[in-house]
Amino acid sequence: MRDEPIFISQLDTDFYKFPMAQIQFKDFRNVRVRWKLKNRTKGVSLANIIPELELREHLDKARKVQFTGSEIRYLRGVEVYSNPMFSEGFLGFLKSFRLPDYWLEYRDNELILEFEGPWCETTFWEIPALTIVSELYARNITKHYSRFEKERMFAEGIKRFAAKKDILRLHPGITFSDFGTRRRAFKSWHEKIVVFCKEELSKQFLGTSNVHLAMKHDLVPIGTSAHEMFMAMAGIAVFKNKMGLGSKEQNQAIRNSHNEMLENWWEHYGWGLSIALVDTYGSPFAFATMPKSIATDWKGLRQDSGNPFEFGKRAIEWYKSHGVDPKEKIIVFSDGLDVVKIVDIYRAFEGKIKISFGWGTNLGNDIGIKPLSLVIKLVESYGQGTVKLSDNIAKAIGKPEDIEQFKKIFRYEEKYKEECVY
Amino acid sequence: MRDEPIFISQLDTDFYKFPMAQIQFKDFRNVRVRWKLKNRTKGVSLANIIPELELREHLDKARKVQFTGSEIRYLRGVEVYSNPMFSEGFLGFLKSFRLPDYWLEYRDNELILEFEGPWCETTFWEIPALTIVSELYARNITKHYSRFEKERMFAEGIKRFAAKKDILRLHPGITFSDFGTRRRAFKSWHEKIVVFCKEELSKQFLGTSNVHLAMKHDLVPIGTSAHEMFMAMAGIAVFKNKMGLGSKEQNQAIRNSHNEMLENWWEHYGWGLSIALVDTYGSPFAFATMPKSIATDWKGLRQDSGNPFEFGKRAIEWYKSHGVDPKEKIIVFSDGLDVVKIVDIYRAFEGKIKISFGWGTNLGNDIGIKPLSLVIKLVESYGQGTVKLSDNIAKAIGKPEDIEQFKKIFRYEEKYKEECVY
Repeated sequence: MRDEPIFISQLDTDFYKFPMAQIQFKDFRNVRVRWKLKNRTKGVSLANIIPELELREHLDKARKVQFTGSEIRYLRGVEVYSNPMFSEGFLGFLKSFRLPDYWLEYRDNELILEFEGPWCETTFWEIPALTIVSELYARNITKHYSRFEKERMFAEGIKRFAAKKDILRLHPGITFSDFGTRRRAFKSWHEKIVVFCKEELSKQFLGTSNVHLAMKHDLVPIGTSAHEMFMAMAGIAVFKNKMGLGSKEQNQAIRNSHNEMLENWWEHYGWGLSIALVDTYGSPFAFATMPKSIATDWKGLRQDSGNPFEFGKRAIEWYKSHGVDPKEKIIVFSDGLDVVKIVDIYRAFEGKIKISFGWGTNLGNDIGIKPLSLVIKLVESYGQGTVKLSDNIAKAIGKPEDIEQFKKIFRYEEKYKEECVY
Repeated sequence: MRDEPIFISQLDTDFYKFPMAQIQFKDFRNVRVRWKLKNRTKGVSLANIIPELELREHLDKARKVQFTGSEIRYLRGVEVYSNPMFSEGFLGFLKSFRLPDYWLEYRDNELILEFEGPWCETTFWEIPALTIVSELYARNITKHYSRFEKERMFAEGIKRFAAKKDILRLHPGITFSDFGTRRRAFKSWHEKIVVFCKEELSKQFLGTSNVHLAMKHDLVPIGTSAHEMFMAMAGIAVFKNKMGLGSKEQNQAIRNSHNEMLENWWEHYGWGLSIALVDTYGSPFAFATMPKSIATDWKGLRQDSGNPFEFGKRAIEWYKSHGVDPKEKIIVFSDGLDVVKIVDIYRAFEGKIKISFGWGTNLGNDIGIKPLSLVIKLVESYGQGTVKLSDNIAKAIGKPEDIEQFKKIFRYEEKYKEECVY
């Protein structure tokens, strides 16, 4: 297991990367950004666990992987959101695409991993780099396991999945998708769980965010958009307005960029991909400022931080305030779920608004070893520091002074702070 | 090996079935046809080799196989001939498609296998039924082999492939595609050979007609059209003209149907799929009557019967007679090839006209057991007996009286008769 390459298919990534990258390629080809790995798990020093040479070897190997003709044909044929979804120009870009260079440094017990370059290229590092670091972490902390201990670990995983399955079957109204790629401990285990979901929970399992597994196991590739769209747009707004505009206008440009991103997204993908992620600068800002069309026309919302019960209540009020029946809209919950949380949320909103779940780490990486809370986030766009506040200030991204500035711009009130488990 | 299902993917068929079926679905949805298995190998009684129950079991299992979502997405994304190539209407038809019923009877030591029904449905039986019969034949004649004898058979296959490979490498100008699906002895062996072609002869191997293998191993799916298009069109012409027209007009309608098929094909697929198969009623008829545009606009011709050297010479003359430089056109040879024949044909036409090879039985089924010359051919279209004459009268299909009538209609001169080896 130790030497097996981890990243061997360019489709072994989350589906949402493709609709996002298409907009980045089409509208923002010259925008340069910087991404940085952040380990939110306290007490775990990746630098002391993963040997630098081993990490380099896997990152270098990933840079050699290209899209195959069959993979491009599959992407061209994906019809579930809109059809055709990808332009020939974008597919041609993918055809010759390789992951760009990376920056890796081990310094003072810290593992520093960054990606700097064109947005539409560096964006494709997020998931492969996360899966490589996650799996090397898991391989290294289990490297002294005997054969029996490994078997026991996976037996524990089966037992835990069985418990989840039994509970979910008791609630046939609960539907969910696999969002586990980025923090999987072992690629093979993740695949096994996805296949079990398909076979054991076929009526409740909607699909997987992993495009390679979706293609291989005939599942719906699931995904919409991520915070990077909002974060980079703010940087672009600042860059544009630095030339001559004063700081009040600049703040206004940053404020406006949030809803401009949503409008641009709708123009590209329409109803098919219309699940709005609204917590980048705190969902209260979004609910207070989003145009009515997001309530009336879009499919729904994604909840990715803070208190899901609060969010759901607020969303229902927001829909009603726009004269929309919440029962016709959906919330996709995707923040640090486990089966108890899923059932609780489901019970809280059953019959009030449609709901579904994007279930990540605790679904695909629950085998008894401590999962990491690992992210790779945009830190710069057009030379401007980027910021994510979210509904949980412990999840905030950005330089402290930028975070303070953005809190003012978006009138952010700090209400919720909880360390991320994963 | 004995009980393993043979047909498990609706893409485990030849690519040309899809462009043909699309036309059948779009323009000829109500045309009913009949197909019949014909074993051209003398001295082999399939009825005595393949148990009826075993054959039924595999045919019944095949009827349960449906296109997966990933397979439909792949087909939608195939861009190599035209883009988009398949309409959403046709893809929707495939989505709910299952193989229709079959007629199987064991009578007087004869295995009778027929498919009767809508053309666009029964057409999809040809390749699955051939692969099932071929593999059951191979499984049954090797069923008493010891484990060692099976190993020896496949070792012989490796040795034979090695000899082919060495000869082809000496002629780097020779390019070829795998057309071996229909007469493969073992599915797994065929796949192995296709992968070896990709790995060992990558610059000379253009792809495979097997769509499942093309998707799985990232190869170009290869194929254009088959005799069934011409044969059914003649039946349709007769049917239409029976109402009121005398026999002279009917003969004229049959004569016209050949070039009408080519024109219809061009209208659907244009340059991308413009390799004309011209031997249905003998290539002399085709060369004498095809409109100039087939010479000027189409990519080239496919040679599938008779003497390939004669055909090539005639084709070159035909191109020149239309003022076309033959060096810009291609002939795809696909009739009973082996490596010696391939090299001979290549040497004969090198520098005179482009050539390539569609290599079937002797490529994918050369392991020391006698391959069958097995076909499933259209025998009726719209209640009218169909006819194929070809450039080798031993390959003719049809009732004797119909063959005689068609010989007159197309002024066919019997010049060449050679039993089919495969």
